[in-house]
Amino acid sequence: MSATLPHDSIRAVHFQGEVLRLLDQRRLPHEEVYLDCRSAADVAQAIRDLAVRGAPAIGIAAAWGVVLEAQRLAASATPVDAAQLEPVLQQLNAARPTAVNLAWALARLRGVLVRAPGGAPLDVVEALHQEARAIQDEDLAANRRMGELGAALFGHGIGVLTHCNTGSLATAGFGTALGVIRAGHIAGKISQVYAGETRPWQQGARLTMWELVRDRIPAKLVADSAASHLMKSGAVQWVVVGADRIAANGDTANKIGTYQLAIAARHHGVKFMVVAPFSTVDMATPNGDAIEIELRSPAELFGIGGQRNVVDGADAWNPVFDVTPAGLIDALVTERGVIEKPDAAKMRAAFGAPERA
Amino acid sequence: MSATLPHDSIRAVHFQGEVLRLLDQRRLPHEEVYLDCRSAADVAQAIRDLAVRGAPAIGIAAAWGVVLEAQRLAASATPVDAAQLEPVLQQLNAARPTAVNLAWALARLRGVLVRAPGGAPLDVVEALHQEARAIQDEDLAANRRMGELGAALFGHGIGVLTHCNTGSLATAGFGTALGVIRAGHIAGKISQVYAGETRPWQQGARLTMWELVRDRIPAKLVADSAASHLMKSGAVQWVVVGADRIAANGDTANKIGTYQLAIAARHHGVKFMVVAPFSTVDMATPNGDAIEIELRSPAELFGIGGQRNVVDGADAWNPVFDVTPAGLIDALVTERGVIEKPDAAKMRAAFGAPERA
Repeated sequence: MSATLPHDSIRAVHFQGEVLRLLDQRRLPHEEVYLDCRSAADVAQAIRDLAVRGAPAIGIAAAWGVVLEAQRLAASATPVDAAQLEPVLQQLNAARPTAVNLAWALARLRGVLVRAPGGAPLDVVEALHQEARAIQDEDLAANRRMGELGAALFGHGIGVLTHCNTGSLATAGFGTALGVIRAGHIAGKISQVYAGETRPWQQGARLTMWELVRDRIPAKLVADSAASHLMKSGAVQWVVVGADRIAANGDTANKIGTYQLAIAARHHGVKFMVVAPFSTVDMATPNGDAIEIELRSPAELFGIGGQRNVVDGADAWNPVFDVTPAGLIDALVTERGVIEKPDAAKMRAAFGAPERA
Repeated sequence: MSATLPHDSIRAVHFQGEVLRLLDQRRLPHEEVYLDCRSAADVAQAIRDLAVRGAPAIGIAAAWGVVLEAQRLAASATPVDAAQLEPVLQQLNAARPTAVNLAWALARLRGVLVRAPGGAPLDVVEALHQEARAIQDEDLAANRRMGELGAALFGHGIGVLTHCNTGSLATAGFGTALGVIRAGHIAGKISQVYAGETRPWQQGARLTMWELVRDRIPAKLVADSAASHLMKSGAVQWVVVGADRIAANGDTANKIGTYQLAIAARHHGVKFMVVAPFSTVDMATPNGDAIEIELRSPAELFGIGGQRNVVDGADAWNPVFDVTPAGLIDALVTERGVIEKPDAAKMRAAFGAPERA
């Protein structure tokens, strides 16, 4: 995992002083186009519109959104403090309800503001900038560590199925579940990767395949509905997925379809691994029932690429996350270590009691 | 289920003497366009290209394809006999490998030819015509009977999930699994239908929703990957699907994703019903392992509606059917009756020993 590997070439989130430059993931794989955000409102919009996505990347982008706003306040000689920035924090936090990394990143910036009351505006801006940079750098380091830990669980010559996109595009770089797959590939352990296309947004088809082809990792796209048939064929030994929120008992919210993969994996004796930074763990949420699941517009199911293929007057049910119970998870990998068959007691032992505000 | 219900208005296959007119299902739901086939080659092409689809409809279309060819032979004063038509039967049979109705319908026409050696060409044409008409009429009657039998298994106020399209478009009319749903709706037993979109061809999104909206049956489209989350919510009591081939032990080949739904249904205590005419039962195939699963081009997974959304150089694995083991099936409904928890002994008791050539 040297720094010169091609896996390091993709960066979804670039802070450039006056603007936050986001690789617009709606345009991939056709075009590598960047979206420039100049305010927290721009960043919130980019999160809502899925220009930036993936729980860790959303948290990082939101942190930079606060920095952008703090810079604007400082430039107009307005105090840079918690009172001024709280509406901005709230606006960013409301952009996606399910991913906890968003709230976690914003809480870290709020902490900076709380610790620096009455500071000179430029000093506060600098402190916020350092915190956002730390969040981004720590995420990349966490991904590399998780890659090592997760890949160590693999046997040799295995097939791996993943879901959604959890790669460089979804994080500060390298990826969570896709980082484990990258590390497994580098270690020569993986013979074949399968990527579920991930309806309705096709993150697997559009983004994960883009990353895997770019890295020359042997990969095949599969329909989400083909996963069980694939497992029955014996081609897959591990399902490896990311997470948007992990409750205190190990229940894990992730992209819609993850739960179905976990049921299928258990049915076939295939192992199921969740890979997510500790920032995804929400010890204040007791279990999956307490996690809000985002429902989005039926229109997202009515076509792909803007071409409608469902009759007028049709309705749809479009939950975009689901919860996988801890009992279906064989390994939970964070940068703090691996928890096999997670439950409330093991989670508490590993992560302590709830500490989040 | 009177003949004046709107459910009778859709006919996917119309024989019109000189041409076989097929409702081109690739153009739905946008346009109701018909494709005119004038030869068996045209029909085989329409089957391969999915202009006509659904196991029963394919069998019916193929039968009319033989009639078209017999008419051509008779018009050119060529003998209409088994020797002349065998290549045509083979050509049609090769158009889709998984659905058994195709082979079954062609075997019935072959039987007509075998029973009428040396007949006057126009007499043989007339006998083939009668047989094709019988196949079509019997299919519609079978669907109405299966509708009654299947709907009788429903409780009141239930939610039903279906997959792919098994309606009027896939049959001579009314439908198999969708016929049971229609009958359940007419009986006032169904509060909500959910249709899985059915990647990669979107038959659920494009065709089943079109039929359900047309019939004003309360219906919501769901991503295939959302089925388990839906079941966990308690909204669904039955999964009802069709079949392309049912082996002698009850193992059932159907559209990719069916097997995954069966696993999820069992996990959640949701009942699983397979609805298919007896022509789908293949007592000569001992079990699901002996069923050939059609693999189609990776390109079918690379987009929808012609717009590619996967990076160049990507590969895909695209099986379009899978096998649901009999052990996951709660009820198998044919026009001959209901078999609960099918197995080889119950299948043999119901249908006898293999009789097919």
